[in-house]
Amino acid sequence: MQNQIIEKLEAIVGEKWVDTDSERVLSYSLESTNDNYSLVAPEPVSGSVVVKAADSEEIAAVLKFANQEKINVIARGAGTALAANTIPDQESIILSLERLDKILEIDEENMLLKAEAAVSLGDIIEELKSNDHLYFPLHPGDEGAQAGGMVAMNAGGVRAVKHGIMRNQILGMKVVLPTGEIVHYGGSKGKLLKNNAGYDLMQLLIGSEGTLGVITEVSLKLYPEPKANGTLIVAFNDRRDAFGAVPAILKRGIIPMALEYVEKDEIELAAADIGKKWPAENGEYFLIIMLSEAKEDDLFEIGAQIDEITAEFEAVDMLIAQSISERKDILDIRSHILPAITDKIVDSPDVTVPRGSLLEYLDKLNEIEAKYKTKCPVIAHAGDGNLHVIILKEDGEKPSYFTEIKEDIYQSAVDIGGTITGEHGIGKLRQDYLSMMYSKRELEIMKQIKSAFDPNNILNAGRSI
Amino acid sequence: MQNQIIEKLEAIVGEKWVDTDSERVLSYSLESTNDNYSLVAPEPVSGSVVVKAADSEEIAAVLKFANQEKINVIARGAGTALAANTIPDQESIILSLERLDKILEIDEENMLLKAEAAVSLGDIIEELKSNDHLYFPLHPGDEGAQAGGMVAMNAGGVRAVKHGIMRNQILGMKVVLPTGEIVHYGGSKGKLLKNNAGYDLMQLLIGSEGTLGVITEVSLKLYPEPKANGTLIVAFNDRRDAFGAVPAILKRGIIPMALEYVEKDEIELAAADIGKKWPAENGEYFLIIMLSEAKEDDLFEIGAQIDEITAEFEAVDMLIAQSISERKDILDIRSHILPAITDKIVDSPDVTVPRGSLLEYLDKLNEIEAKYKTKCPVIAHAGDGNLHVIILKEDGEKPSYFTEIKEDIYQSAVDIGGTITGEHGIGKLRQDYLSMMYSKRELEIMKQIKSAFDPNNILNAGRSI
Repeated sequence: MQNQIIEKLEAIVGEKWVDTDSERVLSYSLESTNDNYSLVAPEPVSGSVVVKAADSEEIAAVLKFANQEKINVIARGAGTALAANTIPDQESIILSLERLDKILEIDEENMLLKAEAAVSLGDIIEELKSNDHLYFPLHPGDEGAQAGGMVAMNAGGVRAVKHGIMRNQILGMKVVLPTGEIVHYGGSKGKLLKNNAGYDLMQLLIGSEGTLGVITEVSLKLYPEPKANGTLIVAFNDRRDAFGAVPAILKRGIIPMALEYVEKDEIELAAADIGKKWPAENGEYFLIIMLSEAKEDDLFEIGAQIDEITAEFEAVDMLIAQSISERKDILDIRSHILPAITDKIVDSPDVTVPRGSLLEYLDKLNEIEAKYKTKCPVIAHAGDGNLHVIILKEDGEKPSYFTEIKEDIYQSAVDIGGTITGEHGIGKLRQDYLSMMYSKRELEIMKQIKSAFDPNNILNAGRSI
Repeated sequence: MQNQIIEKLEAIVGEKWVDTDSERVLSYSLESTNDNYSLVAPEPVSGSVVVKAADSEEIAAVLKFANQEKINVIARGAGTALAANTIPDQESIILSLERLDKILEIDEENMLLKAEAAVSLGDIIEELKSNDHLYFPLHPGDEGAQAGGMVAMNAGGVRAVKHGIMRNQILGMKVVLPTGEIVHYGGSKGKLLKNNAGYDLMQLLIGSEGTLGVITEVSLKLYPEPKANGTLIVAFNDRRDAFGAVPAILKRGIIPMALEYVEKDEIELAAADIGKKWPAENGEYFLIIMLSEAKEDDLFEIGAQIDEITAEFEAVDMLIAQSISERKDILDIRSHILPAITDKIVDSPDVTVPRGSLLEYLDKLNEIEAKYKTKCPVIAHAGDGNLHVIILKEDGEKPSYFTEIKEDIYQSAVDIGGTITGEHGIGKLRQDYLSMMYSKRELEIMKQIKSAFDPNNILNAGRSI
């Protein structure tokens, strides 16, 4: 990065907050994609500069300058993205949001938590511990993920069945546009449950992966803390049975907090890796069902119903975890699968299909496995129809058929009404596959939307949209 | 409309489905805005032609032609809009969707109902009567409202507290773009719970008021039918007490289906107008609280809690309606307020504020009432912070201060973090007030989005965005 650019950035945020040290810049250039999918993650281009702005006003000044000089800017949260969403492919200003780390407010009247962008999911969980009646349901795996990033990525995760994904939790936000204007969505306070004035630009920002604006504050919906919680593990010997039980449970009117699918090898590795034991001793395939109800009685009643339903799908065992520590262990083990198996995997496309088509997708996956003579383990947010299909290494390397199998995994989902990504987004890993889902005209509209927000294409440039 | 245009339209949809009869065209040019707010609704421009296309393909052909010839097109559902959203301001093709009237599917596995655009809310309620375990919660007043229109308007209504507004119920849709392409959102089947591939154009279509595309099919989320339902009416003698109780109830962890606020004069008129009796004899101001729970016991328990909470706000009476017919009566009376009072009113802005700011808004409204020496009755979806502030006629006429009081009502909402419209949208009645909420840059982005979808500005033209 040229000296005069560095100087100008220092003038905006202060010398202390501009970092060009190549090792530190590298650490800000890598994300979880590099840790978990090292064989497919792009190497970051060097020469970037890390800028740690103090607030929305400084961010606005940085963006105004970058827009004028046409310098690429990458907004950076915790770096927990998984589709090469923030890895620089050119000399960039890496705009770290780490100084925007305050929980601004827990607003009891409006039942929301307002946080600056860099407040982590862990911070939110911790803060709400001292609140005896409100909680935030979502849990997208890594508790280091930050509020701004979770909104920009429209995160999902394990607890989206009852209350929906991130999109459904946003009441408002503060955003700095790439042209430097600071705007508020959800009214000037970001606290609106309804707003039909004009096009809902807030909805566009959600899931825009840092390409339309820099989210600096978000208001997250809180819910009454459920009084009775329990986690069931139901074990099966056949994948088809486990998947088949999913819509059957929901159809009965049971809406759990989470309805996850895992397989024995991966979940046992994850447990061992954090020094825990996976509690189920029977079965090869498991549903993890997290229930949150108003009363204990309801919990037992629903547990009995699930026992009955899953028996029809040849379930071989059911365990119930009720204590906080047991339930936390299960969630922790589940959340640790990806880090525990990174040595073995190349990639894991997070395709999503209609929930009722999970079995149909499984049949297609069996064909794919046969075609490439491999096994594809699956982890799934089954209640949402969202699968993580794992492409394994062969002899520690990317298999020769990697591109083909990945495309088959995507295409099979799209063919039955699915999407190539339900959670992780397009990033740089999937942008070439957007045309599997959208026509030229639709992609053109997306490009024009990008250009309406970001006429000089400075935010997360180098992407097709 | 020129003859050669008529002929071309007849060639596309068949002679039988093109109507130029001036009286019938007029009936397709008027909407509920004309019935309810006759003093502010614009008169439709004559000379339009009604086209009744059979399906998405015919609609695509009509739009392609209109786009080429730059003829204005207005997609038309039931005409229940309330902000002059579909009244022609120029010679237009009024594209009636009435032939797209089929419920395509109730998909139990995916818990959704897929309907063509012209299926009415009444049709949906009727169809689901024969389904013993799934239901659709939303109820935006007029059961004649059609699925496509409810999505295009992002309808809200009385039962949006528990499961959210229309935006939260959409899993997919089929849309004809103004340039004539047919696209699917939510995957090719419109059944996805998660999709992070690219910008979410579906979210833009929701609430776009017919300006970005013609919605021809929608997939609506269904929910397990709650087994225990009850409607409470809590009576107060003071407006402030009624409003003050709203966040207090929700903060206690009670999430009703609906939490409505009404006033004595209007609700009694509405009841009388449909030959019913408003059941509450005491009090001037009422909360209508519709509860839907898993069990009868829960219903009574919550009822007792509400009794306790509202007692702190000086409630003077509480009634409980449990039978289907009693509950239906209350919903019907509530839904009939607007038609019952149309003789008396000029307009009723549907401002929305943060729910916790309802009392603050009420104080501002008191000041407004004092300033103009008038009374503004209020009907409110109080649980959503959504008020309908009624501007009354004076001596049967629009009062001299009409524009000023309307602007004060809007501005007071915006000043405390609210919006000028939570439900009815911009239409032609409110487009001049968008700048109260958005900067020039934001409006410019909206205009560019409009132009990305509709480069020749043929859909609902004559609007600022």
